[in-house]
Amino acid sequence: MLSIAVIGAGRIGRIHARNVAEHPGATLAGITDPHAPSAEALAAATGSKVISLDEAFSIADAVLIGSPTTTHADYIERAAKAGKAVFCEKPIDLSAARVRECLATVAAAGTTLMVGFNRRFDANFGHLKARLDAGDIGSLELLVITSRDPGPPPVSYIQTSGGLFRDMMIHDLDLARFILGEEPVELYAAASVLVDPAIGEAGDVDTAMVTLKTASGKLCQINNSRRATYGYDQRVEAHGSKGQLRAGNQTATTVELANAGGFTSEPALPFFLERYAAAYKAELNTFIEAVAAGRAPTPSGDDGLKALVLADAATESAKTGKAIRLV
Amino acid sequence: MLSIAVIGAGRIGRIHARNVAEHPGATLAGITDPHAPSAEALAAATGSKVISLDEAFSIADAVLIGSPTTTHADYIERAAKAGKAVFCEKPIDLSAARVRECLATVAAAGTTLMVGFNRRFDANFGHLKARLDAGDIGSLELLVITSRDPGPPPVSYIQTSGGLFRDMMIHDLDLARFILGEEPVELYAAASVLVDPAIGEAGDVDTAMVTLKTASGKLCQINNSRRATYGYDQRVEAHGSKGQLRAGNQTATTVELANAGGFTSEPALPFFLERYAAAYKAELNTFIEAVAAGRAPTPSGDDGLKALVLADAATESAKTGKAIRLV
Amino acid sequence: MLSIAVIGAGRIGRIHARNVAEHPGATLAGITDPHAPSAEALAAATGSKVISLDEAFSIADAVLIGSPTTTHADYIERAAKAGKAVFCEKPIDLSAARVRECLATVAAAGTTLMVGFNRRFDANFGHLKARLDAGDIGSLELLVITSRDPGPPPVSYIQTSGGLFRDMMIHDLDLARFILGEEPVELYAAASVLVDPAIGEAGDVDTAMVTLKTASGKLCQINNSRRATYGYDQRVEAHGSKGQLRAGNQTATTVELANAGGFTSEPALPFFLERYAAAYKAELNTFIEAVAAGRAPTPSGDDGLKALVLADAATESAKTGKAIRLV
Amino acid sequence: MLSIAVIGAGRIGRIHARNVAEHPGATLAGITDPHAPSAEALAAATGSKVISLDEAFSIADAVLIGSPTTTHADYIERAAKAGKAVFCEKPIDLSAARVRECLATVAAAGTTLMVGFNRRFDANFGHLKARLDAGDIGSLELLVITSRDPGPPPVSYIQTSGGLFRDMMIHDLDLARFILGEEPVELYAAASVLVDPAIGEAGDVDTAMVTLKTASGKLCQINNSRRATYGYDQRVEAHGSKGQLRAGNQTATTVELANAGGFTSEPALPFFLERYAAAYKAELNTFIEAVAAGRAPTPSGDDGLKALVLADAATESAKTGKAIRLV
Repeated sequence: MLSIAVIGAGRIGRIHARNVAEHPGATLAGITDPHAPSAEALAAATGSKVISLDEAFSIADAVLIGSPTTTHADYIERAAKAGKAVFCEKPIDLSAARVRECLATVAAAGTTLMVGFNRRFDANFGHLKARLDAGDIGSLELLVITSRDPGPPPVSYIQTSGGLFRDMMIHDLDLARFILGEEPVELYAAASVLVDPAIGEAGDVDTAMVTLKTASGKLCQINNSRRATYGYDQRVEAHGSKGQLRAGNQTATTVELANAGGFTSEPALPFFLERYAAAYKAELNTFIEAVAAGRAPTPSGDDGLKALVLADAATESAKTGKAIRLV
Repeated sequence: MLSIAVIGAGRIGRIHARNVAEHPGATLAGITDPHAPSAEALAAATGSKVISLDEAFSIADAVLIGSPTTTHADYIERAAKAGKAVFCEKPIDLSAARVRECLATVAAAGTTLMVGFNRRFDANFGHLKARLDAGDIGSLELLVITSRDPGPPPVSYIQTSGGLFRDMMIHDLDLARFILGEEPVELYAAASVLVDPAIGEAGDVDTAMVTLKTASGKLCQINNSRRATYGYDQRVEAHGSKGQLRAGNQTATTVELANAGGFTSEPALPFFLERYAAAYKAELNTFIEAVAAGRAPTPSGDDGLKALVLADAATESAKTGKAIRLV
Repeated sequence: MLSIAVIGAGRIGRIHARNVAEHPGATLAGITDPHAPSAEALAAATGSKVISLDEAFSIADAVLIGSPTTTHADYIERAAKAGKAVFCEKPIDLSAARVRECLATVAAAGTTLMVGFNRRFDANFGHLKARLDAGDIGSLELLVITSRDPGPPPVSYIQTSGGLFRDMMIHDLDLARFILGEEPVELYAAASVLVDPAIGEAGDVDTAMVTLKTASGKLCQINNSRRATYGYDQRVEAHGSKGQLRAGNQTATTVELANAGGFTSEPALPFFLERYAAAYKAELNTFIEAVAAGRAPTPSGDDGLKALVLADAATESAKTGKAIRLV
Repeated sequence: MLSIAVIGAGRIGRIHARNVAEHPGATLAGITDPHAPSAEALAAATGSKVISLDEAFSIADAVLIGSPTTTHADYIERAAKAGKAVFCEKPIDLSAARVRECLATVAAAGTTLMVGFNRRFDANFGHLKARLDAGDIGSLELLVITSRDPGPPPVSYIQTSGGLFRDMMIHDLDLARFILGEEPVELYAAASVLVDPAIGEAGDVDTAMVTLKTASGKLCQINNSRRATYGYDQRVEAHGSKGQLRAGNQTATTVELANAGGFTSEPALPFFLERYAAAYKAELNTFIEAVAAGRAPTPSGDDGLKALVLADAATESAKTGKAIRLV
C-alpha cells in the first residue's frame, strides 16, 4: 500500500484524489489546498482528511502535485529532498532552465518523478502504440496528430498559461515523441488568432500547426484549435511502410439517427474529463505500480523537459516564421 | 453483335434501351411502345428507331421486355415462338399458373429467357455472395435482408401491382434464394398498413416482415417498408459459422459534416435508378454474353416462378396469420 | 443507505455484490452461497462478510438474488414475506404458473420486486429508447433486434436452462416489449440446430428468429445465434415514420488498421460482462433509488412474467411450426 | 458540338479521348501521337481517326493536350496562336518562367486555356467545397489534405518529373488553393526518402509534409507519401468556426467482413484511374460547356502557374530547411 498525499483540490486534484482513494494499492493520506473549503470538500468526498502543505511532504510515501504550474518545481524539489516519490501534473515549469534545475535536484535526491502526460495512457493511443511497436504497419513514416479543444479557456488563464504551445500542444508534442520513438531534429510552427481576438491581445494564438522531423526522416504534423463544435477532438493517424493505424474519438453511445439529413452519429466526448477519465486511472496505476516495484515510471521528468523544449521552439518558430533546428 | 429490340419506353424501358445502345456487344434494333411520343423520344435519345410491336418479334436476335406486367407472359411466348432470346423484367406474370404455362412454351421453343432481378447484379450484393461462396464466413446460418423504398407508389399503381409481396418483396425473395443457395421450406409473413391508410383500402399492406427457413435449417428474415426518410435502404447481412458479411447502402459522396449535432454522413442514394444504375448494366451484360456464348443466363424463368411462389405464400401467410409449409 | 444481502456468489452474484459494495447509497450486508469458498472469496473481495441463507432474509433492507434459477421464486417469496425489497436475476422461474404464484405472494406482501433485465440499462439501448420516446423518428414501425452470443454455454447448462427462448432470447423479448411500448399479439418462431448437434440432442436449438406483431401493427424481428466469431453482437434498429435509430456494438478501442486487406476496426466487446458492465451498475442504481424513494422499479415482476410468456410461445411456435395468437 | 483534337495516346490521353468520344456535346476530331500504334489503337477504340500533329492544331475547335510535360507549353502556344481553345494536362511546364511566357502568349491570342487539376472535379471534394462555400462550417480555419499514392513510379519517370512537389503535390497545392479560397503567404516543407533509396539517389524525395498559411491566418497541412498499402489515399478535412467537413476515400463496394480479427471494410480504390474516373468526365464537361458558352473555365492557366510557384517554393524549403515567405 502506497500512501499518497495530494496537493491541490482543484479540477485536476479532484480527479487524482478520487482515483487514489479508489485504487486498491494506494491510500489517500490527505489533501492540502490553500483554499480550505476546496480541500475540505474533497477530503469529505474521498473519505480522507485535510492536511497542511508541510504535512504533504512528510506524512506519506508519495506526493501527487495538482496545484498551479508556478508551484510545481518548488514542490517537486521539496518532495524529492524529503525522499518522496512524486507524481506531478504537466508542465514541471514554464522555464526550461528551471525544469533542468528541478530535475537535477530530483536526480541528486535519487527519488522517483513521473509527469502527468495523460494521453499516453488513453486506451486508444496506447493500443495504437502497442500495435505500432508490434510491427503491424512496418516502420513509421508519417504521423498526424489532431487535437482540438471544444472551446478556449478564459483569457485570464491564457495570460499565465505560457501560451498554446506550452499549455495545450505540449500534450501533443509528448504524444508525438512517445509514438515516434525518436527525437525531432527539426521543427516548424505556424499559428493564428482565429477563435477570439482577445486571445491575440493577450499575446497568445488559438490555432496552430507544427511539423516535426526526426533524424531518420519520420515526419509528424500536429494541428491544434481552441475550438471544435463537435466535442473534444483527439485523434492520431500513423502511416507506415506496411499500413496505417488510426485512433479516433470516443462517443457516449453508439446510437445513430438516419433521416433525410443523412446518418448522424454522436459528437465526440465533450472534454478531457470524459475522454481521459480512464487514462487518468491508468496513469496513476502506472505510478503506483512503478513505485511499488522500485522502477522508474514514464513519462519521466526528462520527458517533461523534452516536451517543454519542443513547445518553446514552437513558440519561437510561430513568432519568427522560421523553422528551427533542434540540437 | 447481338441485335436487341426493346418493348416499352417507360421508366424501365428507358434504362434498358440506353444500356443496350451503349453496350459494345449489342445493337439497339428499335423501340416499340403504344405511346408513340415515348417511343419516339427514346429512339431519338438512343440513336435508334421506332418499330411496331410485330417488328419487335422479327427484326432482332433478342427481345427485351420492359412493358407493363400484364403483357409480359404474352410477349415472352411470342418471342419464344419466333425463336428469339428474351430478357423480361420481373415478374413474368402475377399468376403462378400463367407463369408455368409461359415457361412451358419457352421450354418447348428451346429459347433463352432471363428475368430481370437486378439486385443479383449489384456490386455490393454480388461481392457478398462471392465471398460467401468463397467460404469467407464458413456456412451460412442467418440472413437478414432490409429493403425499404423511399416512399410508396401511387395507390393506382398498387391496385394492379399484385400487392407488396409480389411487387416489392419479390426482389428480396429472389435475393434470399440467390444468397441462401437453397430453397425455403417454411415461410411466415406478418404485415401492416402503417404508411398510408389508402394502401390498406386498396387491399394491400405497406410494411412487412417475412421469415424463411430452408431444409438444412438456414434462417432468413426480410423486412420491407414503403417509406424510408433516409433514402432507398437496401442492405444484406449474412451470418455464418466463421463470420459475418454485410453489404450496405451507397451514398452520393463520402462527405461528412461534424458539429454539435454529431457526425453526419449522407443519406442513402435516393432510389433504384441511382442505386442500381450499374446493376442494370451488369445484368444486361450477363444476358448479352450468355446469348452470345449459347449459355442459359440466370436468373432464369424458373427463378422468376420460384420467387413468385414465395410471394404468393407470403401474401397468404400475412392474410391468414398462419405459417406456410412449402412443398 | 440501503443495506442489501446478496444470495449467490457465482459469476452474476460477483458482479452485483461488487456493484453494491461500490454504490454510495448502499451497503453490502453480507453474502451467502452454499459453496462456502465462493462466498468467502467474494466477501473478502468486497470487504463484506459471509452470512447464512436465513440471515439473508433478515439482516438487510433488501435481498439481491443471483442464485440458480430454480431457487428464484422460493427466495423471492421468502424475502417478500419478510418484508424485504427484492432484486432478482431473470428469470423468476421457468414455469409461468409458478411465476404467477410468486407474483401473487409479492403482491400480497406489498413489497418491491425488480427483475434483472440488464439490457434496458445499456446506455446505447437506453439512449435509443429515449430518442424514440422524444419523437426523433416519429412513430415506430419496424424493430430489428440482433443478439448473438460469442459461443454456446456447456450442454450441461443448456439442459436445465429452459431452452434458448427462455434462457437467451427472453432478454430480447423484454427489450422488444420495452422499445415497442406495446404488447405483441402475434408471434412466430423458427429455429435450428446449426452450431452444435449436441445442443439438438439436449432438446434445444442454437439459432433462432422470432417475429412479433403488436395490436397497432408494429412489427419486430429478433435473430439469435449461439455463436458469433466477432464478439458479443447486440444491436437494435428501430425504423419509424420519420427516420431510423440504430444502437450498435461497442469496441475496446477506436483503433483501426488499414492495409491491403482493407480497413479493420475492432471486434465487438467479448461478452456480457464487458458489454453490460455499466448496465449492471445502472440497473442496481435504479433499484436502490426506487426503494429509497418508495417507487416501484421496472422491469417489474410482471415484466418478467410477460417476457416468459413470450418465450414460452416462441418455444411452442418453433416446435410446431405454427404462428401463435397471443391473447 | 465542340470538335476536339487529342494530342497524346498514352494513359492520360486515352482517358480524355474516350471521354470526348462519349460526351454528347463534343466530337473527337482525331488523335495524334508520335508512337503510331498507340494513336491507331486509341482511334480504333474511340471510333476516331489518326491525325498529324499539324492537323491537331487546325482541324478542330479545341485541342486537348495529354502528351509529355516537356511539350505542353509549346503545344499550348501553337494552339493559342491558331485560335484554338486548349485543355492541357498539368503542369504547363516545370519552369515558372516558361509558364509565364506561355500564359502571355495565350493572353495575347485571347484564347481559352484550362489546366487539368482533376481533383477539383471529384464529387467528394467538390461537395465539400460547395458546403464550405454555403457556410456549413462557418469560416475555414484549418485544412488537412492527405494524398498518398499506392506505390512510387519508376525512377526513370521520377528523374524527369520535376520532383515530388512539382509532380505529385502540385495537385494538393492546387486543391489547397481551391478550398482555402485565398493565397498562401507562408510555406514550409519537410521531406524524406523513406520508401526507396533509389528515389533519393535520383535527387527526389518520397515522403513529404507542407504547411501553408494565408494572409488571414488560415492554416493548411498537406501530407504525401509515395506508398500506401491500402489503396490510393485521397482525403480532405476542413475545420471551421462552426464545424468540420471531411471527404474520405471511396471503395469498390460497401461489403464488410466481421470475424475474430474485427470488422473489415474494403481498401480505398486502387489509383487515380479508378478514384477520379468520374472527375475526368466532369472536368472535360466543364471545359466543353465553358467553351460553348464563351466563359473562361477554371482551373485556369494562372491556377497552373500559382500551383507551380508553390511547388517550387516547397522544393526549395525542403532542401534548405527554411520556411519561405511568398510575396
